[in-house]
Amino acid sequence: MKIICPKSELQKSVSIVMKAVPSKTTMPILECILIDAATNDIKLTANDMELAIETRVQGLVIEKGVLALDAKIFSDIVRKLPDNDVTIETDEKLNATITCEKAKFNIPGKSGEDFSYLPLIEKEGCIRVSQFTLKEIIRQTIFSIAVNENNKLMTGELFQIENNMLRVISLDGHRISIRKIGLQEECEDRKVVVPGKTLNEISKILSGELEDMVDIYLSSNHILFEFDDTKVVSRLIEGEYFKVDQMLSSDYETKVKINKRELLDCIDRATLFVKEGDKKPIIINIQDGQMELQIDSQIGSMKEEIDIEKEGKDIMIGFNPKFLIDALKVIDDEEVSIYLMNAKAPCFIRDDNQQYIYLILPVNFNAVSR
Amino acid sequence: MKIICPKSELQKSVSIVMKAVPSKTTMPILECILIDAATNDIKLTANDMELAIETRVQGLVIEKGVLALDAKIFSDIVRKLPDNDVTIETDEKLNATITCEKAKFNIPGKSGEDFSYLPLIEKEGCIRVSQFTLKEIIRQTIFSIAVNENNKLMTGELFQIENNMLRVISLDGHRISIRKIGLQEECEDRKVVVPGKTLNEISKILSGELEDMVDIYLSSNHILFEFDDTKVVSRLIEGEYFKVDQMLSSDYETKVKINKRELLDCIDRATLFVKEGDKKPIIINIQDGQMELQIDSQIGSMKEEIDIEKEGKDIMIGFNPKFLIDALKVIDDEEVSIYLMNAKAPCFIRDDNQQYIYLILPVNFNAVSR
Repeated sequence: MKIICPKSELQKSVSIVMKAVPSKTTMPILECILIDAATNDIKLTANDMELAIETRVQGLVIEKGVLALDAKIFSDIVRKLPDNDVTIETDEKLNATITCEKAKFNIPGKSGEDFSYLPLIEKEGCIRVSQFTLKEIIRQTIFSIAVNENNKLMTGELFQIENNMLRVISLDGHRISIRKIGLQEECEDRKVVVPGKTLNEISKILSGELEDMVDIYLSSNHILFEFDDTKVVSRLIEGEYFKVDQMLSSDYETKVKINKRELLDCIDRATLFVKEGDKKPIIINIQDGQMELQIDSQIGSMKEEIDIEKEGKDIMIGFNPKFLIDALKVIDDEEVSIYLMNAKAPCFIRDDNQQYIYLILPVNFNAVSR
Repeated sequence: MKIICPKSELQKSVSIVMKAVPSKTTMPILECILIDAATNDIKLTANDMELAIETRVQGLVIEKGVLALDAKIFSDIVRKLPDNDVTIETDEKLNATITCEKAKFNIPGKSGEDFSYLPLIEKEGCIRVSQFTLKEIIRQTIFSIAVNENNKLMTGELFQIENNMLRVISLDGHRISIRKIGLQEECEDRKVVVPGKTLNEISKILSGELEDMVDIYLSSNHILFEFDDTKVVSRLIEGEYFKVDQMLSSDYETKVKINKRELLDCIDRATLFVKEGDKKPIIINIQDGQMELQIDSQIGSMKEEIDIEKEGKDIMIGFNPKFLIDALKVIDDEEVSIYLMNAKAPCFIRDDNQQYIYLILPVNFNAVSR
């Protein structure tokens, strides 16, 4: 094999496929990037058996062939090369020589024999969204997937297509995040659970531009994202996702309108007194025209008031401050509406069109001991 | 005590004195910042008994007093306050209330009784340099102090004043870094060894501006740096520093002129193959008009050539690549001169005026096994 690619192109493509290289594995071939120049196209592939990424590199095939290179070493070399054309060449023993200007690297290669290419997904029923939208919708929901693997379904996000809307849902037992967007083209109703890791990695690759599109295809076990010169295929998480609609309610006893920035800054200050692992709630006391936030801990205490617009009853309720911060951070509105029922029922932060809904369970607190 | 300071001023001053707050200590009072408003000036002080910093804060003293607050909590609170006037007030039990806009924090304070103020240094024989110069000279030498404490003197830097020149020297047994600057004003000859930690911390506080000055005073045990509204006092390291001049030589068999950027980039690429703790040398083969650099390791090999101007003999010599990188990184010249004697003698990177001298010991390598 012998190929020539501009360094910048090669670096971009290597960094894309690196997202599917496992950090630890018992199968050494998975630690490699496959360079496939069997045709006149040059393709890079990496595959950790859950997530597989293939991307095309701009470049010239001088001698056709296939080669697998240790991903870590190959990417380090490419990153440090001068900004010029890079030649990658193998001898009959699959030793690779990487040359750029006067720099010449020799590293051992492997044949691509044992390498797993991307699973084939039939391209039926394309779901098309902009890269911006997909990246945003992931950012706005991914924080409330579960960290531990006790319940596999909670480590993924529900992608639900219904009436030409895409609804993305994540939950971890303490809170639920829901985002909804309209789809431009007619789509069949479907629902699948996509691993959180896949979504994290793909959002790092997406350009985030409104005019760049992503085509999404579903099979019974896989999801395929196609965009630019890249294909990302991920396994789906099997099983029936939680019936979220039963947990949502539009009833409320108290409605609060509040400046998002003020609330976020205030809760952020309160978390000073919350050490990691410590479950100190922030206590919110809602009265006419004013919300008082208070936190008490062994280190010290903090109290602050914020002006609000209130409808309905007064209420005092406690929350894990982190959950409020996570949700408020990904809401772009200047003013948010919070809906509350009582001190033991979840609160809802949602907009009028319900394009976003954040449900957060309250924390018990002993009102007497304050 | 009751004082009012703008948040920005308070934050700036707190972050300065934080540099002298120890991360671990058996004396709880050292974990505090002392707020001294006993006069109409507000001063913050921290002291880890090696390094002490005092700085003046702009602000208003409403009620005179002194208060010690946990440094970590106090600095976290100040950082997160809104950008407005901050009031700090104590009650008779030394509980402190910190108020800014509608935010109100309560934390326990301590009396300043047990607190150690800065040691008094007689201000005789001022050494005046610009903050830029001091910051630069530290950056250009600090990397070659010893990391471990086996030899205490090696963990500091020699500040030597001789013939109205300031010479700063550091060494770790494998290399020596020397920087020399002229002093504007007449100074007495002196030499002291300043702890590396002090220099690291002070260079974080220095503005780095050419027009801002630092006044340096020496006593037998301490060094005092005075600049802006800040005083930094550090203990000196006791003992006789190494006789460095005996190790310097201006004889050479080979002189090389080389583009610094090219050499640095090339060595940087070669270090790809050097894992931490691994002592793979980079082997440099100097011939007429050309320097060949090569590194071989279990992972792979790299070879590169760079155009040079050479005087004297051909030579092949091995170095720890990190030592070359450290020195080259802090040299601003576009072209550097390297002086070599033989494969077992140190090389010197130095300019014509010897404003900088970097001595690096070579590493043995087995030329046959290559």
